[in-house]
Amino acid sequence: MLQPLSLKSIDIHDAFFSSRIAMARDTAIPYMWNALNDRIPGVAPSHCVENFRIAAGLEKGEFHGFCFQDSDLWKWVEGVAYSLATHPDPALEAEADEVIDLAGKAQQSDGYLDTYYILNGLDKRFTNLRDNHELYVAGHMFEAAAAYYAATGKRALLDIACRFADCLDREFGPGESQKHGCPGHEEVELGLARLYEATGCERYLRLAAYFLDARGQTPNYFAQEAYARGGKPEMGWDHLPTFMYHQAHVPVREQTVAVGHAVRQGYLLAGMTEVGGRSGDHTLVDAASRVLDNIVDRQMYITGGVGATHVGEAFTIDYDLPPERCYNETCASISLIMTAVRMGRVRPNGRYGDVVERALYNGILSGVSLDGTKYFYMNPLEVWPQRCEHRQDMQIDDERQGWFGCACCPPNVLRTLTGLGQYLCAQGDGTLYIDQYVSSTLNAQDITLDMESGFPWDGRVTLTVRSVKPGAHRLALRVPGWAREHTITLNGETVSLPVENGYALLERAFVSGDAVTLDFPMEVRFMHASQHTPNYVGKVAVTCGPLVYCLEEKDNGPELWNLSVRCGSSTVRFDPELLCGVNVITCQGLRETTSAALYDDGAPIQSPATLTFVPYYAWGNRGKGEMTVWVRKA
Amino acid sequence: MLQPLSLKSIDIHDAFFSSRIAMARDTAIPYMWNALNDRIPGVAPSHCVENFRIAAGLEKGEFHGFCFQDSDLWKWVEGVAYSLATHPDPALEAEADEVIDLAGKAQQSDGYLDTYYILNGLDKRFTNLRDNHELYVAGHMFEAAAAYYAATGKRALLDIACRFADCLDREFGPGESQKHGCPGHEEVELGLARLYEATGCERYLRLAAYFLDARGQTPNYFAQEAYARGGKPEMGWDHLPTFMYHQAHVPVREQTVAVGHAVRQGYLLAGMTEVGGRSGDHTLVDAASRVLDNIVDRQMYITGGVGATHVGEAFTIDYDLPPERCYNETCASISLIMTAVRMGRVRPNGRYGDVVERALYNGILSGVSLDGTKYFYMNPLEVWPQRCEHRQDMQIDDERQGWFGCACCPPNVLRTLTGLGQYLCAQGDGTLYIDQYVSSTLNAQDITLDMESGFPWDGRVTLTVRSVKPGAHRLALRVPGWAREHTITLNGETVSLPVENGYALLERAFVSGDAVTLDFPMEVRFMHASQHTPNYVGKVAVTCGPLVYCLEEKDNGPELWNLSVRCGSSTVRFDPELLCGVNVITCQGLRETTSAALYDDGAPIQSPATLTFVPYYAWGNRGKGEMTVWVRKA
Repeated sequence: MLQPLSLKSIDIHDAFFSSRIAMARDTAIPYMWNALNDRIPGVAPSHCVENFRIAAGLEKGEFHGFCFQDSDLWKWVEGVAYSLATHPDPALEAEADEVIDLAGKAQQSDGYLDTYYILNGLDKRFTNLRDNHELYVAGHMFEAAAAYYAATGKRALLDIACRFADCLDREFGPGESQKHGCPGHEEVELGLARLYEATGCERYLRLAAYFLDARGQTPNYFAQEAYARGGKPEMGWDHLPTFMYHQAHVPVREQTVAVGHAVRQGYLLAGMTEVGGRSGDHTLVDAASRVLDNIVDRQMYITGGVGATHVGEAFTIDYDLPPERCYNETCASISLIMTAVRMGRVRPNGRYGDVVERALYNGILSGVSLDGTKYFYMNPLEVWPQRCEHRQDMQIDDERQGWFGCACCPPNVLRTLTGLGQYLCAQGDGTLYIDQYVSSTLNAQDITLDMESGFPWDGRVTLTVRSVKPGAHRLALRVPGWAREHTITLNGETVSLPVENGYALLERAFVSGDAVTLDFPMEVRFMHASQHTPNYVGKVAVTCGPLVYCLEEKDNGPELWNLSVRCGSSTVRFDPELLCGVNVITCQGLRETTSAALYDDGAPIQSPATLTFVPYYAWGNRGKGEMTVWVRKA
Repeated sequence: MLQPLSLKSIDIHDAFFSSRIAMARDTAIPYMWNALNDRIPGVAPSHCVENFRIAAGLEKGEFHGFCFQDSDLWKWVEGVAYSLATHPDPALEAEADEVIDLAGKAQQSDGYLDTYYILNGLDKRFTNLRDNHELYVAGHMFEAAAAYYAATGKRALLDIACRFADCLDREFGPGESQKHGCPGHEEVELGLARLYEATGCERYLRLAAYFLDARGQTPNYFAQEAYARGGKPEMGWDHLPTFMYHQAHVPVREQTVAVGHAVRQGYLLAGMTEVGGRSGDHTLVDAASRVLDNIVDRQMYITGGVGATHVGEAFTIDYDLPPERCYNETCASISLIMTAVRMGRVRPNGRYGDVVERALYNGILSGVSLDGTKYFYMNPLEVWPQRCEHRQDMQIDDERQGWFGCACCPPNVLRTLTGLGQYLCAQGDGTLYIDQYVSSTLNAQDITLDMESGFPWDGRVTLTVRSVKPGAHRLALRVPGWAREHTITLNGETVSLPVENGYALLERAFVSGDAVTLDFPMEVRFMHASQHTPNYVGKVAVTCGPLVYCLEEKDNGPELWNLSVRCGSSTVRFDPELLCGVNVITCQGLRETTSAALYDDGAPIQSPATLTFVPYYAWGNRGKGEMTVWVRKA
């Protein structure tokens, strides 16, 4: 299994991402800290930190918020940790230390730490794993603890996490006196694997594996615990077949297609891949790989969005990908890249980097406004605002919101951006794999590289060896799936490299100053969807390099559906003023107009039209209006 | 205001409709009678007649069913009455008399009759007009009473109805001691107008007008009665703005667009038109006409379906007409033709007959299976069964059902078919207006005509004068909106007739034996939808004469979306074996296939394909499968 470089070993200085990471650092981190502390006027209080103060006995009061409210803090701490790893900030670190100290005071003597149950009755803890998110919250704490320890070297949160993990390890397992349960919302598996990575304690990895395999067994634990509570196992609210929503309908090793709540599915796959990879459990990785393939080949939007329905925020069936009825939760795309990046470490293949790239540059970035203050929970590929606002069966926001009651997406975007370094490269088997072309300095084990990248506007990348240990080294350079051709030079000479599993392989005794240039020409592509997908026949999506483009009403007028595009007719121009600087694609096409009648057999009139496409990630930043990714062919 | 001929004056003998009417008579009437009497094994009991027996003191027990359960009986009686008017059936009439006798026993001494409140507490009657359907049930009883009296001459039900109407007339009105309310579900207005027509009692017409004008006033009665119950006026379940669901957001004379529950909207408009027409209240008719225009010009599916969302079974906004997300309740299309036929009597214009024809031959007939035993509540224009079954946000049945818990549609279809004569013609101003070309003998006031029609397969119609009073008579013959041209002959000689308001006018001193032939060539038309409608650009719907056609998987294989049609290339062939005999339309077109990739910029492959269209009304009679009305243009 390949290892990522530590964030401390990566210095990102990228024209595209650095400002976004800085915005996350300078805007989102303090905004969320204020939100978690109920200090934002006009925004409903989170009560998140308050719950910890009450649980620590420092204040009187009751628990408020969702049963997973604590996780908002842990995701914030994780995002802060990634930021601190590369951008020390003593004041921020002091704030984090303080809230970690607070959490320590709230922790129970046996290690238990979840303010929902501490304040609502510890006798009820671990009685409703399916719905009440205790293990999910624990997983986020474990991720935060591993990240904070890696960033700061401070053990306080790691110790808190280990105490809680030990508590879980006593409570759950195959023993007769133990509970044979698993979480309703996966995340603890991944968290435990990271805790294992941070501590070397194998019990944590074993417990993660236990939680994975306890899932979907017969009799189903979720049914048993429901009966034990005197209830019934049916879930009413989402109408989904019981336990499929939780990926607990069959054991995880028997699962073949993505089902149920999309974020849960993604976290499960990430956990399976991480645990399987670390423990050498191939059949577990096989199962995760199978389900990931199902997503990528049949259930993923072209933007990397996943989860085709708002009911249960869930996957539906193969090829069911309606553009305006999708859910495509930002968190779900994040869970997809968390899986894909891990699968790429266990079974290196450029296609996993392609998935990360697709989701990162499109369906995840679309979740946050250009000024970093507003968020989409859902990321549709087509919006007609009047329909969104007046059809009561629509669950699509046509404008980004400042903060959500269920605030999972904003801190998830935060930790993705500040932790971006995790996605860039990995090393192992004497090879440094470069997956994402983001300008940065990479201090790998035996080699330090400067990477200068024009992505996503230009496909030229230069890698310069800054220092290197003597001997042969191998670079594996991902050739993006969208690149029809590529040119690679070494010190100015074109080289022809073998491409294996999506990577161009360059092996040599590198010396300091060696320069490798990669050129992946970014051509405008007019993408068709599979014939099995009902919504897109006769339509194309315009892409260029890693980016998916869209039409907005702002540039093209209303009733975008009347426009069609002439494939092949395109010009690309960088506009530094527009949307913080984007490539604008202009195509020729037609606009259709009809008679005034609702139905008429007169042929519509076709007039020439110029279509202006902007990157999908930037949509909805210029006021409310129509948007569409898929456009009819002229 | 024109008057329809009584049903007794119309003898239908139509190749297309007579078998359907016979099926309603021979299959649906007894089936529903058994359903109302809880005698159908495997079908959840209706309790409808049982409720009456308990209310009459003949049995012990509790009320079961919806608060509007009684209306199922009244719609059955109305349908039976229409049948008896032209097809005497002593055994059936005895059954009806018996249940009418039972209802008389359940009626309270002050005339009140609604088993829901009789059995659940009369002290609560008239305290929740908005939700509990008392006045809706009353309206259906009044319609049934007028119909049964007209059919049989028996006054028993008419007397019951008048006693209840008198009770309502004491309870509701402008007087200080009266309630100033109106129904949450309109229907009583139309019922009262028919009771006025049957009895000549003007109080009933005035009460109908009162209910219409009490609607949407400030303060809103629905809010006041909610406060009086100690509740709040908000409706939670449908998320629609309060009172718009009930068309009670503003006074009816100020309403301009169709809103809220589609059946309610239709019944309201039918009531406004009938009351306005009978009382000469032009502004009331103006308002109804405005809203009807909004429906027909902007909110009606090409099949005559109305109600674009299942949430609230409601209208949405102009041009929002998604093909697979519509509700298009069969009852809503019935309410549309109830309105249109009345508007055509008050303000004769062929366009109203066009609306009746469109809904009748398409969106209403699609609601019932060819064998008359199964029903669609919803009538979508596109169905992908996998999506219907697996997307939890879909509310579309992909197969007709035997009976519904909320069994409004089956008896509504029943009364529409057995009462079909109401829609054929009307007379007044010395003119006989022929609206629907259904083979029949029409015994009008001064003239008896034999009509032989080839509709909907052939546009040739012959009208033969069988007998006539001396003097000039005028026939107004609707020229269907779909007819690009027409030829009319009189006794073999082509005549050129003036066409006014959609009617060809033929005035002459007719003599017995005069024969008028009409020829409306039924050409295949490829219909486009308005540019303002987002779902249909680049697509056409195939129509021929009054019929809308569709593609079914059964004839065209799966993944219908890959097919496109070459407009203009069509052959029409009558297949007597298929779907009880239909015209089949064959067109040339293309089938698109792609690579196996989910997204790919390789051009799809186009192969020639033959497309087979069958009438929309007949879809879903050959097992489960895909269906679509709108098809991409090749």
